Amino acid sequence: MNRDSIEDTISAIIDCMRTSNHCFSKSLQEEDVLMVKECIRLTRECSDICALTLNALETDSAFTKPIAALCAQVCDTCAVECGRHLHDHCQRCAEACLRCAEACRNLVAA
Amino acid sequence: MNRDSIEDTISAIIDCMRTSNHCFSKSLQEEDVLMVKECIRLTRECSDICALTLNALETDSAFTKPIAALCAQVCDTCAVECGRHLHDHCQRCAEACLRCAEACRNLVAA
Amino acid sequence: MNRDSIEDTISAIIDCMRTSNHCFSKSLQEEDVLMVKECIRLTRECSDICALTLNALETDSAFTKPIAALCAQVCDTCAVECGRHLHDHCQRCAEACLRCAEACRNLVAA
Amino acid sequence: MNRDSIEDTISAIIDCMRTSNHCFSKSLQEEDVLMVKECIRLTRECSDICALTLNALETDSAFTKPIAALCAQVCDTCAVECGRHLHDHCQRCAEACLRCAEACRNLVAA
Repeated sequence: MNRDSIEDTISAIIDCMRTSNHCFSKSLQEEDVLMVKECIRLTRECSDICALTLNALETDSAFTKPIAALCAQVCDTCAVECGRHLHDHCQRCAEACLRCAEACRNLVAA
Repeated sequence: MNRDSIEDTISAIIDCMRTSNHCFSKSLQEEDVLMVKECIRLTRECSDICALTLNALETDSAFTKPIAALCAQVCDTCAVECGRHLHDHCQRCAEACLRCAEACRNLVAA
Repeated sequence: MNRDSIEDTISAIIDCMRTSNHCFSKSLQEEDVLMVKECIRLTRECSDICALTLNALETDSAFTKPIAALCAQVCDTCAVECGRHLHDHCQRCAEACLRCAEACRNLVAA
Repeated sequence: MNRDSIEDTISAIIDCMRTSNHCFSKSLQEEDVLMVKECIRLTRECSDICALTLNALETDSAFTKPIAALCAQVCDTCAVECGRHLHDHCQRCAEACLRCAEACRNLVAA
């Protein structure tokens, strides 16, 4: 991958980490928190694996590809769950997760 | 602090980290998730600061004391919140948080 | 703080997290790794506390201010250490740490 | 897996996380830090993936198995590297990594 692609990848991961954390907090403030409880669980996992993937990329880890593959898997699952809810924060999280998952898969394939 | 005290401290932090994560997951499975939403928020924070404190202790960090002081603060808050709920996982989390907060304060004072 | 200031703060923290991780990895590749061993130790701590501060900000944590205060303290120390070395990655890390420390102190004062 | 096995698994992961962090810090204090620079890199990664695996196990994550598989991979690599060095902390780290890798593989196979 060239440096531009890596910057795009990092940007997608950072955006997903931030959006997941935002969705985690906003979901806990919803009246229908019971409805979004799986979002809460998954957004935490999503932000944690994004943070690990970022660290791997920035530190030239030998495990960047398997970590990114795992990140794509968590992001895909989080995107499906958040995509089922109409809250703005859930919809935006679903989109950020899909972009991050795609970026991670491209990284794995590179 | 002697090595025995440090082992007790580490043990209290590990127990708190584990019990917080357990309470996080079980709270998300409760019918009354709305009631325990602040536990969910705080147990995540609690397990994260416990993990950071453990890393600091094990790596001889120069910031072990301020990190432990912050850990005690988060644990105390989590203990108050979880202590208000009758679920077993909340009560056990409150106890583990109090023990961890005390251990961290002793570390800071050492 | 208004939303623009918070975005600037977040941006400074993300930059510091990334730059610290980069310096960690590059320092480990230097011939004079013995000279930069304290950079290696501190950049790890710096990126970890930056990640925690980001999570706190994005999840509306009640502990954002004490976490940011601790982040400023770690960043200041890392800036002093990295600032002593002429490697590009150390100099850039020192600058990013100083900006992050200042952003965190502004957050605490807000 | 029964509860006893899970406790053994958790215990192996905690031990590996602690021992890796200890080896990270002690390696940075060695005169021959250049020789152990790959240990320093890998022990950080090892303790981070152990922490993620612990969180996954304690929070009943749907991703526990792929995370544990990744943990086993990192631990195996860290064990090989640390096993090449005669320092006590490296030898003990190598042993803890091998036990953790085996525990994680058993978890994946369960």
